[in-house]
Amino acid sequence: MPPFARFESLAAVLDWLDLRTAPLPPETVAPAGAFGRVLAEDIVAPLDFPPFDRAAVDGYAVRGLDTAGAGGYGPLFLPLCGEIAAGCADPGRLPPGGAFRIAAGAPLPAAADAVAPLAYAEEMAGQVEFTEAVAPGENVARRGTDFTQGARLLPAGRRLGPRDLAVLAACGIGAIRVAGRPRARLVLAGAGLAAAERGVHEVFEADAALLAALVARDGGGVETCRRVAGDPAALREALSEPAVDVILVAGGSGEGRTDGAASALREAGELAFHGIALEPARSAGVGRVGNTLVFLLPGEPVACLCAYDSLAGRALRVLAGFGTAPPYPQRRAVLARKIASALGSVDYCRVRLDAAGTAEPLATGRHTGLAALAWADGFLWVPEDSEGYPAGAEVAVFLYDGVF
Amino acid sequence: MPPFARFESLAAVLDWLDLRTAPLPPETVAPAGAFGRVLAEDIVAPLDFPPFDRAAVDGYAVRGLDTAGAGGYGPLFLPLCGEIAAGCADPGRLPPGGAFRIAAGAPLPAAADAVAPLAYAEEMAGQVEFTEAVAPGENVARRGTDFTQGARLLPAGRRLGPRDLAVLAACGIGAIRVAGRPRARLVLAGAGLAAAERGVHEVFEADAALLAALVARDGGGVETCRRVAGDPAALREALSEPAVDVILVAGGSGEGRTDGAASALREAGELAFHGIALEPARSAGVGRVGNTLVFLLPGEPVACLCAYDSLAGRALRVLAGFGTAPPYPQRRAVLARKIASALGSVDYCRVRLDAAGTAEPLATGRHTGLAALAWADGFLWVPEDSEGYPAGAEVAVFLYDGVF
Repeated sequence: MPPFARFESLAAVLDWLDLRTAPLPPETVAPAGAFGRVLAEDIVAPLDFPPFDRAAVDGYAVRGLDTAGAGGYGPLFLPLCGEIAAGCADPGRLPPGGAFRIAAGAPLPAAADAVAPLAYAEEMAGQVEFTEAVAPGENVARRGTDFTQGARLLPAGRRLGPRDLAVLAACGIGAIRVAGRPRARLVLAGAGLAAAERGVHEVFEADAALLAALVARDGGGVETCRRVAGDPAALREALSEPAVDVILVAGGSGEGRTDGAASALREAGELAFHGIALEPARSAGVGRVGNTLVFLLPGEPVACLCAYDSLAGRALRVLAGFGTAPPYPQRRAVLARKIASALGSVDYCRVRLDAAGTAEPLATGRHTGLAALAWADGFLWVPEDSEGYPAGAEVAVFLYDGVF
Repeated sequence: MPPFARFESLAAVLDWLDLRTAPLPPETVAPAGAFGRVLAEDIVAPLDFPPFDRAAVDGYAVRGLDTAGAGGYGPLFLPLCGEIAAGCADPGRLPPGGAFRIAAGAPLPAAADAVAPLAYAEEMAGQVEFTEAVAPGENVARRGTDFTQGARLLPAGRRLGPRDLAVLAACGIGAIRVAGRPRARLVLAGAGLAAAERGVHEVFEADAALLAALVARDGGGVETCRRVAGDPAALREALSEPAVDVILVAGGSGEGRTDGAASALREAGELAFHGIALEPARSAGVGRVGNTLVFLLPGEPVACLCAYDSLAGRALRVLAGFGTAPPYPQRRAVLARKIASALGSVDYCRVRLDAAGTAEPLATGRHTGLAALAWADGFLWVPEDSEGYPAGAEVAVFLYDGVF
């Protein structure tokens, strides 16, 4: 292909992308497999919780007023009239002036209104001696005090964590609607790449491992991975087959004669943008085949990560219901050295942080390698309209290691 | 069992635990399955990278001095003498005064020392016209400039993220040593719990879903889940079988007559602590059977989460090589209301955050439910020696939602 005539602004590309991405249609799953998925609908309580009045502690079910004066000058005894275990179908009725031994979680017997904890009482010869009084209502969890039937427990859009799975289980909910999981295809279109054995002038293919992990992190799954290096027909075929939500083409995006990704996408569907004002990923491109979003990512791994984080990852996260926010936590840091950045281009600038929160820019531009990437702690996007930042400037850094 | 006579300080329990936990023996895995695992050894580069001198851009391989003066007053032409593709086994030698078309990543021919990018040149009739000069070394990635054989690329202890997997792939490394993955057994020992159908005075079992997600988050896997409610022999058996690293017993940890977890652990192995000054999980316990750590967790899900986050999760993360730090990101927040906390006890206090960073304490103590937990955004541990914090105090909140 000819050299790039111009580079589209990243903001314009993201605008195009955001108009064409929305959470995938929801699917029904069991909560047990839903850790990390995004709720597609509100979860409304199907029952009161607790579903019945119950003892909040192990102890003795009583009428609270019957223990009035306990712990005063004389001993206070009530006859032990029975025992109620957790799960007991029929806890019966507390006789006047009596006490039932009761387990935490067990249903409160009729006529009882309080539970004296074990530390307040001692059993002897069919009697319970109380050393402290309990007020009516004490240590009783009344039906519906946690939540009532119809209450909105979890909102649509919630990414399900451990505590949410506990809420669903406590409600006996066995199926939920969650945002669909984006299905991705990797297409490795770069030339001169080795798999297991490396030819003398080849380098090992590294984008498949990178992209599979990134897609998984962003809520998707790689369904297929095709090597099509040097085979334009196989590349076109890999773009034309439907049945995935996103296709990530790694390599072949540049301006060389053997770089076929852009022309293959133009033939197979729509090449919306090729050449983006984004360093170090200027040769990135975006388009569609039918409803499948296609991203052309530079093959060089650092540039591939830059293009993924700046473009494809955002689309995957929107499809998965995660929203547009980057997946990395942010922290403030002070620049140890200035960052220079060309006007008109967004720079994906890696930095290393020290313990004091000082950020050292590792490099800008395109010719920086994997070792520096591994050494980085995070990155920042220097905006298009900025020429960079002076030493001492405070910046917000996205942290690579906060995403597990 | 009798009521608790005293409650051990959480710090003493953690000291005991930390002395008995260390990363599990490493295992060998393929990098493709190692996303999120922890390196057990340094990764040392087995090759120089790039492994040969190569073109950094698509363009024309030349002697830089041959382009001196290009872009001046007259046209500068060099004869096109060949083409070098990426992966080319033998790029040959550049004839004096000539140019080779070259792809990004392709090996530099002998005698060439620079690559003129496509934008600097135009081909016509077997000649290349250069419109800008390139200096010797320009756009050439020399062998070993990213890293050299023997360089330490990734340190032992590193949790492997996407970029690390790219580094491993680029090195052609097919097997790595990572910290072992803790194997956990869940033992559900609470009474009155329903699975699919709920009896009138039962509640649905919720700890299995909670704990399975927590264990997965902390680098482990639940291998088996046993329901032993009301069956002391089955509980003892579940504790006695070896072959896991951690046993989490949910429920049955209290002081009631049917709470058999502590006595079963004392019989099966060592009950090191039972009764911990930790709200809302005072009935938690810790011990061992052989080398297997056993945690007794209260059955009530909020208390179960408190005990897991305060005790068991820390142990799992150390075993998995993650270290002792909590898995939740932290942020500063200002308390909207005071938090009261009893001296001598650590309080696991849930808070809700508003957009301005104000934290509303949801409740302290034990009788707070799942709905409030779902509504919380994070929590803090109020230390043993603190009576809490006044309204307006700045506190560090651990965020529940930052752990995906």
